[in-house]
Amino acid sequence: MTQQTRVPETESTPGSGQVSAAQQNVEEQLVRNVLRSFEDCQDPRLKQLMQSLVTHLHAFIRDVRLTEEEWNKAIEFLTAVGHITDDRRQEFILLSDVFGASMQTINVNHEAYGDATEATVFGPFFVEDAPRIENGGDIAGAAPGEPCWVEGTVKDTDGNPVPNARIEVWEADEDGFYDVQYSDQRVSGRAHLYSDDDGNYRFWGLTPTPYPIPHDGPVGKMLEAVGRSPMRASHLHFMVTKPGLRTLVTHIFVRGDELLKYDTVFGVKASLIKDFVQQDPGTPTPDGRELGGRAWARTRFDLVLPPAAD
Amino acid sequence: MTQQTRVPETESTPGSGQVSAAQQNVEEQLVRNVLRSFEDCQDPRLKQLMQSLVTHLHAFIRDVRLTEEEWNKAIEFLTAVGHITDDRRQEFILLSDVFGASMQTINVNHEAYGDATEATVFGPFFVEDAPRIENGGDIAGAAPGEPCWVEGTVKDTDGNPVPNARIEVWEADEDGFYDVQYSDQRVSGRAHLYSDDDGNYRFWGLTPTPYPIPHDGPVGKMLEAVGRSPMRASHLHFMVTKPGLRTLVTHIFVRGDELLKYDTVFGVKASLIKDFVQQDPGTPTPDGRELGGRAWARTRFDLVLPPAAD
Ligand SMILES: [Fe+2]
Ligand SMILES: [Fe+2]
Repeated sequence: MTQQTRVPETESTPGSGQVSAAQQNVEEQLVRNVLRSFEDCQDPRLKQLMQSLVTHLHAFIRDVRLTEEEWNKAIEFLTAVGHITDDRRQEFILLSDVFGASMQTINVNHEAYGDATEATVFGPFFVEDAPRIENGGDIAGAAPGEPCWVEGTVKDTDGNPVPNARIEVWEADEDGFYDVQYSDQRVSGRAHLYSDDDGNYRFWGLTPTPYPIPHDGPVGKMLEAVGRSPMRASHLHFMVTKPGLRTLVTHIFVRGDELLKYDTVFGVKASLIKDFVQQDPGTPTPDGRELGGRAWARTRFDLVLPPAAD
Repeated sequence: MTQQTRVPETESTPGSGQVSAAQQNVEEQLVRNVLRSFEDCQDPRLKQLMQSLVTHLHAFIRDVRLTEEEWNKAIEFLTAVGHITDDRRQEFILLSDVFGASMQTINVNHEAYGDATEATVFGPFFVEDAPRIENGGDIAGAAPGEPCWVEGTVKDTDGNPVPNARIEVWEADEDGFYDVQYSDQRVSGRAHLYSDDDGNYRFWGLTPTPYPIPHDGPVGKMLEAVGRSPMRASHLHFMVTKPGLRTLVTHIFVRGDELLKYDTVFGVKASLIKDFVQQDPGTPTPDGRELGGRAWARTRFDLVLPPAAD
C-alpha cells in the first residue's frame, strides 16, 4: 500500500478504480460544500457561472490528481501573468487566446446563421478612430509590404446588398508588427471605409504576413515548454457594422499559408481562407494605379451579415 | 429563430437539445484542435495537465454559454487579482482558497491512511524560524486573548509514541490578526516545540477566535457579490514533522463555533473539530501556572502520522 500521489496514465473520471470509495467521498463532499457556498447568491446567472466553474475546476484537480508542487507552479505562473499585464500588455487575454478560450467564447456567441460570414477573434490590435478612406483608397500608409487589392460585396442573409456598411480593416506590416507596436506615433495598416450603393467595397492593403503573438512573457514561456509555436497564420482583420445587422468581427487568411494549421490562437476557419492571387510585376491594376514595377496580389472577400439580435 | 445568446436555465451538457448539431460540431472541432496543439509536448505530465485543463475550460465555456461581456469581466477580474498581488499579498492563493481548489489539492495529495490525522490548508501566515519553546511553554507572547492549554500525544499509525517530533503551532490573536499582519516586527502567537520521550506535548496558547481572510481586494468583492462571508472558522494551526513519517499540515477547530459550516476556505473536517473546555476563573491550571483570576480553556489534540511516502 503506497501513499504516493497517484498520477493516472490517461485522463480518467476520479474514482474509476484508482481512488478508494472513502477518498472519493471526501473529495465529492468538498465539491458539494463549495457549490453550496454559492447557494445564497442573489444573481442567478452569477450563481450559475460560479457553480459551473467550481464543478469544472474541481473535476480538473481530481482528474489529474494535481500535486501540491504543480499547484504552487500554477500560482506562480498566474502571478507572473498578472505582473506583466499593464495598459499596453494584456497577458491574460493572450493566455485565454492560446488555450482557445477566446475563440470558443466567439463560437458560443456567434452561432452559425445561414450563410452568414463566420466570426473569429478580435485580437489586441484594433484601434478606435482609424483614418477614413474612400472606397478604393489605401490603408497601408507608410507600412512596408506587398500591395494587395481587396474587394468584395456586403450582403444580408436574404441576399440584398448592404450599402453604407462601415468596414474597419487592420493588419500587420511585412515585418509582422502593427503600427501600435512601434514606439513612434505612426498610424498605418489600418483604416475604415463604407460600402457603396451596391454594397461593394475595395481598397489597397498589404498581402498579410505571419507574426508571433508577444512571447517574451509567461505565456510565451509556456508555449515553449509545451513545444508550441507563438506564430499566428497570416491574416487581415475586418470589423463590419451596420445598424439592424449583427456586427461581424473576423479575419481573412491566406490559402497555402503553412501556419494555417498551427495558428496559435485557433482563429482559422475554413470559410475564411481566401485566395490571394499573385500578380507579376507590370500586371495592370484594377484601378490603374501605378506600382512602379512591383509585384502585387489581389483577393476577394464577400461578406454576409445576419440580422441583429433583438 | 432568434440569435440571442442562449443561457441554459441549469447546468447542462452542451448540445443537450439547446445547440444545433452544426454548432456543436464547430465547438467540438475547436476543442480537438486545441488538444492537438499540445500533442508534441515532450513532458508527458505537462501534456496531460494542459490537455485536461483545456477539456475542462472549454466544457465550462460551453456549459454556461459564456457571453463576451462575461469573458471581458473575467479578464478584468484576473487582471485586478494580478495587480494587488505582491510579496506580502497573494490574491491568487486567496482565489484558489475560496473556490475550495486549495483544499481539494490537499485532499488529493493526502489521502486517508488508517487513522492518520487529516490534513487541511496551510494558509498564508506560517513563518519559518518561529521561536523554540520547551514543552509546556507559552506560544502567545504578547498576543492578547484567553489562555488555552493544549496537550496531546504524537503516535505513528502502528500506535507507537513518536518522541522528538517537531511541532509548529501558529494562530491569530483575539483581534483576528496574526503577528505578521501588524506593521511592527512583533513575533507572537507562534512557536515550535518537540514531543517528549513518550510522544507527549503540551503548551499554552490562546483560545482560537474567527477572522476574515483579507477581503479588501477583488476576491473580497467577489465574495460580497455572491453573498458569501469572508470569515474563517476559529482555528489553531499545526505542522508536525518527523523524519520517516509523513509531514502533517493541519488545524484544529473549536466545537460549537457557528462558522464551522461556512469556513470560507473549506478547511474544516469533522475529525479536526475539538472540544475547547471553558474553565472558570480560579480553576487550577495543569502546570500550576497563575493566571491572575482569568478564565481559561483547555483542549486535547492527539496526532497520528503515517509513514513517509517513498
Ligand atoms: Fe492580428
Ligand atoms: Fe489561519
